[in-house]
Amino acid sequence: MTDLLKRVHLLLRAGGSTVSTAESLTGGRLAVALTDTPGASETYLGGVVTYATELKASLLEVDQRIIEEHGVVSPECAKAMASGVRALTGATFGLSTTGVAGPTEQEGKPPGTVFVGIAGPGLVEAVALELSGKRHQIQDRTVKEALAAFESVLRREETPLG
Amino acid sequence: MTDLLKRVHLLLRAGGSTVSTAESLTGGRLAVALTDTPGASETYLGGVVTYATELKASLLEVDQRIIEEHGVVSPECAKAMASGVRALTGATFGLSTTGVAGPTEQEGKPPGTVFVGIAGPGLVEAVALELSGKRHQIQDRTVKEALAAFESVLRREETPLG
Repeated sequence: MTDLLKRVHLLLRAGGSTVSTAESLTGGRLAVALTDTPGASETYLGGVVTYATELKASLLEVDQRIIEEHGVVSPECAKAMASGVRALTGATFGLSTTGVAGPTEQEGKPPGTVFVGIAGPGLVEAVALELSGKRHQIQDRTVKEALAAFESVLRREETPLG
Repeated sequence: MTDLLKRVHLLLRAGGSTVSTAESLTGGRLAVALTDTPGASETYLGGVVTYATELKASLLEVDQRIIEEHGVVSPECAKAMASGVRALTGATFGLSTTGVAGPTEQEGKPPGTVFVGIAGPGLVEAVALELSGKRHQIQDRTVKEALAAFESVLRREETPLG
């Protein structure tokens, strides 16, 4: 995890880029991970934890229709959250997590159903994860997978000919 | 810590109240603690991590004069952050952390200089902490002290004759 975090920060710094986070099921764990690396303040601006559904709409401007039609546990919501936090903070990239940590299901979806959203210049993507384990394991795995997905995007975007 | 968290959530539920968080040096750890208790979604709405100083102004509407005159490591900034996140999220209470986690000093203040802000109906307070230890210890102690200070306020406010 430490190496993954270092690579993410190095890639961001190399591109003169910044990132901000919008978290639901991870409840702040992604922010904690990103602020754990020394020098993180150069590349991590901050983020929001939108635990209550209303905050996804009011703070991140996730369209109410997305929530009604697709639910908050959806790739559409993950993408809207990532775009929303990017706009809110002015970061180069927005990284989001939404899903079911458990122990009970949500919106008819089982624990471990998780979506990661990544937004950047001319880019909005979602990654679907199906994780197993207990609540904490699902939360920790989500953080790791979100950072791994983000690293892939950074490698692709920041070195287009690489 | 688990008992402290349970008491905070119980006091909030008893008063029909909610809380949101605004974090600087704790980088999401306060949000993680508050979302760790089962049933937290009834009383914890969410929060913001304003790691970059600009976000304290743009997201939480901390007055630029407060930042210029007192700095971000100040009781004034802690109070403004707590009031700001309360307004931003519509929660009954706002709870904030700002300070120096270290290892280097910030604004001429040594690591361990920490301020906790609490805002509620007709109430804005700051608590000053002088903590020792390494970066992680200062962050973890801040979370615990912030929750303990918040519990005291809740006990006082929610049972005015108790």
